[in-house]
Amino acid sequence: MLQSTRQVDAKSRYRPQLTESARPSTFEVATLDEHGAVGRAFVAGEHPLTVYVDKREILTLMTLGAAPEALVLGYLRNQRLVDSIEDIVAVQVDWDVNAASVYTKNGLINLDEKMAHRTKTTGCGSGTVFGDLMANIDDVQLPLDGRLKQSTLYALAELVRKYETIYKQAGAVHGCALASNSETGCELLYFVEDVGRHNAVDAIAGMMWLDGVDGGDKIFYTTGRLTSEMVIKAAQMGVPFLVSRSGLTQMGYEIAKQVGMTMIGRAVNKHFLLFNDPGRFVFDAAVAKASP
Amino acid sequence: MLQSTRQVDAKSRYRPQLTESARPSTFEVATLDEHGAVGRAFVAGEHPLTVYVDKREILTLMTLGAAPEALVLGYLRNQRLVDSIEDIVAVQVDWDVNAASVYTKNGLINLDEKMAHRTKTTGCGSGTVFGDLMANIDDVQLPLDGRLKQSTLYALAELVRKYETIYKQAGAVHGCALASNSETGCELLYFVEDVGRHNAVDAIAGMMWLDGVDGGDKIFYTTGRLTSEMVIKAAQMGVPFLVSRSGLTQMGYEIAKQVGMTMIGRAVNKHFLLFNDPGRFVFDAAVAKASP
Repeated sequence: MLQSTRQVDAKSRYRPQLTESARPSTFEVATLDEHGAVGRAFVAGEHPLTVYVDKREILTLMTLGAAPEALVLGYLRNQRLVDSIEDIVAVQVDWDVNAASVYTKNGLINLDEKMAHRTKTTGCGSGTVFGDLMANIDDVQLPLDGRLKQSTLYALAELVRKYETIYKQAGAVHGCALASNSETGCELLYFVEDVGRHNAVDAIAGMMWLDGVDGGDKIFYTTGRLTSEMVIKAAQMGVPFLVSRSGLTQMGYEIAKQVGMTMIGRAVNKHFLLFNDPGRFVFDAAVAKASP
Repeated sequence: MLQSTRQVDAKSRYRPQLTESARPSTFEVATLDEHGAVGRAFVAGEHPLTVYVDKREILTLMTLGAAPEALVLGYLRNQRLVDSIEDIVAVQVDWDVNAASVYTKNGLINLDEKMAHRTKTTGCGSGTVFGDLMANIDDVQLPLDGRLKQSTLYALAELVRKYETIYKQAGAVHGCALASNSETGCELLYFVEDVGRHNAVDAIAGMMWLDGVDGGDKIFYTTGRLTSEMVIKAAQMGVPFLVSRSGLTQMGYEIAKQVGMTMIGRAVNKHFLLFNDPGRFVFDAAVAKASP
């Protein structure tokens, strides 16, 4: 996990009390390979983390545990259960009991109503309250003036590749990153890996919340597929550029069009497909297509 | 989707009334590539499907829609909301309203209790009722006498590769397969692709239920990662051999050990890693390791 290096306003910003309870991310186990040879391999951690808010049990997240406090914060933010980081007093993660205890100033917003809604919405590819997410997407208007350069896209992919430490060692995780986006290129602000795509994106939302980072001039990168939920979460974070090394679903595509998000899939080794809003993309690194 | 070709006992078996409402799986959209060239690409469908049981709304699944009736049946089976296929009267999928209406003889088992449990368990990598799944895993005892040959493993991987039509065209889906396993090799019984791993495995559980297929002498194959949920579901279906082209998590590994499941990961191009219970694996296709 890469934490933000930007400490601007760090002293004046409100910050809840947080534990720092990252878990070891990989574990070594015995294997046999196709030759029958004994070996060892690393596997990614997967742990239940039950979230309690003001002592009420909310749900259990299955997570790698690399950024549990940010994950819980981002979950509450993305589910719109809490409006403002100032409403969070503390997040205490205790792996002895696999619990994250959250304390708020004013409780959660419409919790019972949202719990009831969950009935009809959970079970999507991600275990989140989908209907509730969709309900708010009509309000999202992404900034139209940003531009993403092809050279910046390539630089970002290279930066992410260097940070994928757990994936390289053990596989079985997805990575999500938030990067700055300027005339001169990009800088990796956060990078989180987790066993669930939805966890990695929630953890980044939590870090942005903590640091007061706005998504409007950023790029969101994920190694995972761009399903409806990933697009909705990126839109809620206000990020106009969404990049994936994988493919996308039709519903992800439709929502990206609706909110005006530039969506780039299959971004591997200087190849990519641009799926929406090409007007904001600058082909500054295009190479001539080889003649047949 | 490959339906079972085995029609043994088909006439005498009970079968609920089912619609056959598979949706088109891929959609074509406009793209620009890295050269700025206009093109078209296929993307995988993703659709909400709200499940009603005896007119009560249960949850919404996000699915490709290739096997919606089997998916709903398998979901109810794997969540242990219904004990027997004979308790299902009908499953009617209507995409005009994105709804699957299930009618039962005797209602669901402990629905309210399970709905309450969901609070603490949903949100895992898959949106299913994890705690409830784990509660039953202690009862699972997989058959110990089966053997899996290396040559059969290779043959299975090749069979699956041929059937991955949606993945090849559009990506963004996971495939799951159930195969027979005998002295002479294997045969693909079911193959399902979906935008969610958990949906593909549920759909196969539904097909097995419909056809009265036992898992004890079968192999379960998935293109996706072997997380706790995948291992638990394979164990509940009674399948002793679980194969993936991807990696695994520590919790998936621990549960496989607990239930006595032979687990094979990273099965790509005649390479693989055997993670548990090697005594049931027969190295009949091992090639000598090249000398350094």
